This record gives sequence, structure tokens and C-alpha cells, in this order.
Amino acid sequence: MPLFHRVTILGPGLLGASLCMAVKERGIAEKVRVWARKESALDKCKQEKWCDETESNLTQAAKESGLVVLCTPVNNIEGTLAEVVGEATENTIITDVGSVKETICRIGHREAQPGQSTFIGSHPMAGSEKSGMEYARSDLFDQRTCMITPFKDDPVADVLKLENFWTELGMKVQQKSPEEHDKIVASVSHLPHLIASTLSEYLSHRPESWLQMSGQGLKDTSRIAEGDPFLWREIMKSNRDFLIQALDSWSDSVTIFKKMLDEEKWDKLEDFLARAKECRKKF
Amino acid sequence: MPLFHRVTILGPGLLGASLCMAVKERGIAEKVRVWARKESALDKCKQEKWCDETESNLTQAAKESGLVVLCTPVNNIEGTLAEVVGEATENTIITDVGSVKETICRIGHREAQPGQSTFIGSHPMAGSEKSGMEYARSDLFDQRTCMITPFKDDPVADVLKLENFWTELGMKVQQKSPEEHDKIVASVSHLPHLIASTLSEYLSHRPESWLQMSGQGLKDTSRIAEGDPFLWREIMKSNRDFLIQALDSWSDSVTIFKKMLDEEKWDKLEDFLARAKECRKKF
Repeated sequence: MPLFHRVTILGPGLLGASLCMAVKERGIAEKVRVWARKESALDKCKQEKWCDETESNLTQAAKESGLVVLCTPVNNIEGTLAEVVGEATENTIITDVGSVKETICRIGHREAQPGQSTFIGSHPMAGSEKSGMEYARSDLFDQRTCMITPFKDDPVADVLKLENFWTELGMKVQQKSPEEHDKIVASVSHLPHLIASTLSEYLSHRPESWLQMSGQGLKDTSRIAEGDPFLWREIMKSNRDFLIQALDSWSDSVTIFKKMLDEEKWDKLEDFLARAKECRKKF
Repeated sequence: MPLFHRVTILGPGLLGASLCMAVKERGIAEKVRVWARKESALDKCKQEKWCDETESNLTQAAKESGLVVLCTPVNNIEGTLAEVVGEATENTIITDVGSVKETICRIGHREAQPGQSTFIGSHPMAGSEKSGMEYARSDLFDQRTCMITPFKDDPVADVLKLENFWTELGMKVQQKSPEEHDKIVASVSHLPHLIASTLSEYLSHRPESWLQMSGQGLKDTSRIAEGDPFLWREIMKSNRDFLIQALDSWSDSVTIFKKMLDEEKWDKLEDFLARAKECRKKF
């Protein structure tokens, strides 16, 4: 039996449309409903096999769904959330797919109607530097990690059901508090983005001919700098404090490296590189 | 007609053995000769189709070869070089595959015997975080960039012949002075390695459970930190001054980023990310 009768996806972008495909392909819901702000996006969805129903009215969209997943852009997710959570009925679980969790989970938790709706944040760590429905694929979530961030007083049955949803999509699920989540992703996701971007920005001030001499190493180290600037500005803004903390701690490692070069401490430098290599093997 | 009668490869590691394979496959020389320090390595080579002759005596190995390529580890390349260049006869071109060029080119140029041998540095930008003959592949050089670093008074015919050699291996060849080369690779290769290593070393001080939450972004940004620590220590040691310069300039970009986060200058931060994205597209 499918986990849900109806799953509603709000915002059929790369993540949203990939979710629709995967839910349909794996038989996780009988009906997949899609809401989008633009009529043109809904028209496109209507032609897809993974879309059973479309709805252009946001408060209507959330009704009669076992699960509602907010996949709208980060910048208007909070407004959308408040509107949806208050309107949901019939024991609806509402979740999102955002990269930063503390603020949104606080709002979702506050707006939820006991007995009618529960909000639990999700962060499926899947994606691409590409965006848009046309890049959607049903295997986007396969074997990736998904963090879910319940509060302690959330109904256990709902937490379990949300966990099952992501597991059935092929993901490895971990539970963290919203705060812990944000602290961790500051280090393992937002800091790497910052670093890749500074490297690429630094090279934008060097002669363009230098770039012809770049190898695979530079390409890999800087790949994520091609992510969407507005999206990443919003992520960094939402997680500013933890990102500054991570940046400061990592800067200590850079300072140590600089000192070893300045003072020509080659044995120490080799130890540092070996420590980095050992840790990298665990990623 | 093959470009050379005999090509001699000194040191059949990942690069050396891949060179042998590619030279043989593309018919660039009639004979491929291999020299290695260890008898056991030579025994292995004898069983390979890409090896026509082996020689355990270094000064003998260099004789009667149109081209000698030093692929020995960075740390003893200079001693090996002095020995080979002085002994070569019959208009031999000698080159190497090292990542840093100024010192080695100075020694090679000084030791060369006019009319008998010419040393011209090469830096094929191909490789892997793996090392050793067992990872060798004949397509390692295909479509990659190779820098050659002649001095102004090197015979034009020899420079051209070396350029043809790398081109016939499928590489895109660029000429730079040894100094220019070192300055550029400090930014496009050695700095990215330093950055990837500091990120990985920073994470080695964080809870190991955090690493389970890492996505493809972190994996790519840190991949090259898995390179051999001793090899990279030697590279950074040889190119210390230019690497410090690059590190300082890049640190300015990091400082600017930190300031924008501190002062919450989100529009400026988005511009920075956009500049980084634009530059990344050119890599």
C-alpha cells in the first residue's frame, strides 16, 4: 500500500519535479499534486506523467494531502509556509527541502495546528549546480543523505512517517535538531561554497590566459562556485552566524599553513597534508 | 616516420608508464627504453608490451636516445638530472615532467652540452591523486595542457621537436618561461591544493559524524587533498615564494567575504558570488 494517498509538491523546480518523478516511480503516493505560482509552469506539469493534479490556489493545494513538500525558492519560503501550515487539514505532515533549518522550523512549528498539521523540516542533500524542471531526474535522491529536524514535542508517528518517505526515495535519513543541522551544514556545505567562490573570484582578477593552464584539480575545487548567486546569498544570509564561526575556525588552519610556509617547516607541513588526506578519505 | 628512433623514460611510475604506453600506441618512437632505480620495477616493465628495452645503469640509459624524459620523484630529480644531461650524446633532448620549473631548468640548462644535449622543461598537466605503474593509462595526456619552458637561447629545432612530441600525445602545448610557469601554477594548481587541504584538515578537528552529512560539493572541493603528502610538500617547497604570493592575494578575497558577512552586505555578497560564477565558467 502506498505510504500516502496524496502528496502535494509546492514548486516544481529541479528538486520539486525530481520529487514528483521519484514518488510516482516508486509508488509512494496514489496521487501527486503540484502547485506552482506561474500558470505556465502548471501547464507544463499537466503534460507530464508524474503529475496527476495541478492546483493554482495555494491554500486549496495543501488540503486533503497526507504530505505537503515546500520546494519553493528560499526567499519566499517563509511566507508560503505560514499560509500553508495554517490551512492544512486532516492530519497533514508539512515539510520543506531548504538548506537552513532554524528559522523555518520555528515558524512551521508555531503555525502548526495540533491534530490538523505537523511541520517537520527536511534537508535532502541532493541537487546540482543546475536548476529548473528540465534538469529533474527520478534518481536525484538515491543513496544521498537526508536530514530531518523534528522538535522534541512533535508526534512520533509523524516523524516516523516522514522518515519513511525519504527512505522509500532511497535516501539515508539522519535526525538532528534544527540548530545542530545548521551548525553542521555551515562547515560541510556552506563553508566549502564560500571557499570555492573565493578561489574563483581571486582568479577573476588574474590574466585570463592563466585559466588555460588549469587542470582537473582547480576544476573540482571550484565546481560549486557555479551555483546560483542569489540562492547562495539567501542560504548564507539565513545561516550567517554559524557560517562566520566555521569561517573563523577554518581560517586558523589557513594561518597555520601560511606560518609553516613562511618558516619553512617542511616536516610539519607534510604532517598537515597527511592529516588532511586521512580525513578526506572519510568524506 | 616516428618522431624519434628511441625514447627513454626514467622512472616508470604513473606518469612514466602512461607515457610509455601512449608513445607506443601512437607510434611516436620505434623503441621505448625504461630505466628504474629498482630491479623489481624493471622486471615488471619487461613483461609489458609498451617496453622494448630496460636499462639499470642511469648514464647508459640516456645514451643513443633522441628524447629522454625524467619521470622520477621530485625529491631526487635534480641529482638524476645532472647525471643524465652530462652523459647524453648524439643530440639528445632531455626533458622532465615536474610541477615546478625554475630550479630544474636552471640546472638542466647549465649542465647541457652544446651540440650533444639540450634540456627543456615540460609540465604535462595530467595525473591523478593515485600513483604507481598499476594506474597507468595511455589516454592520460589526451586533451590536457602541457607547458614547455625553454630558455631564449635553446635551439629552435629542439623546442619544436619537444612541442611535437607532446602534441602527438594529444596535448595542447603552451610555451612559458620557467619563472612565468611557476608563478601561474602557484595560483591555478598549488593554491587550490593548499585550499583543499586546509578545508579537509579543518574538518579533521570536527566530530566524525559530521562527515556523514557531506554532499558532493564538499567531496569535489576537497578531492585533491588526497594527493601524496610528501610529493606536495616537495612541490610547495620548490615553489614557496610564488605560493606565498598567491596565498596572500587570495586571502584578500577571503577577508572581503568575511567583511561582507560581518556587515551583512548581501547585495555585494551576491555580486561577489556572481563574479566567481562567471570566472568559473571559463576554467
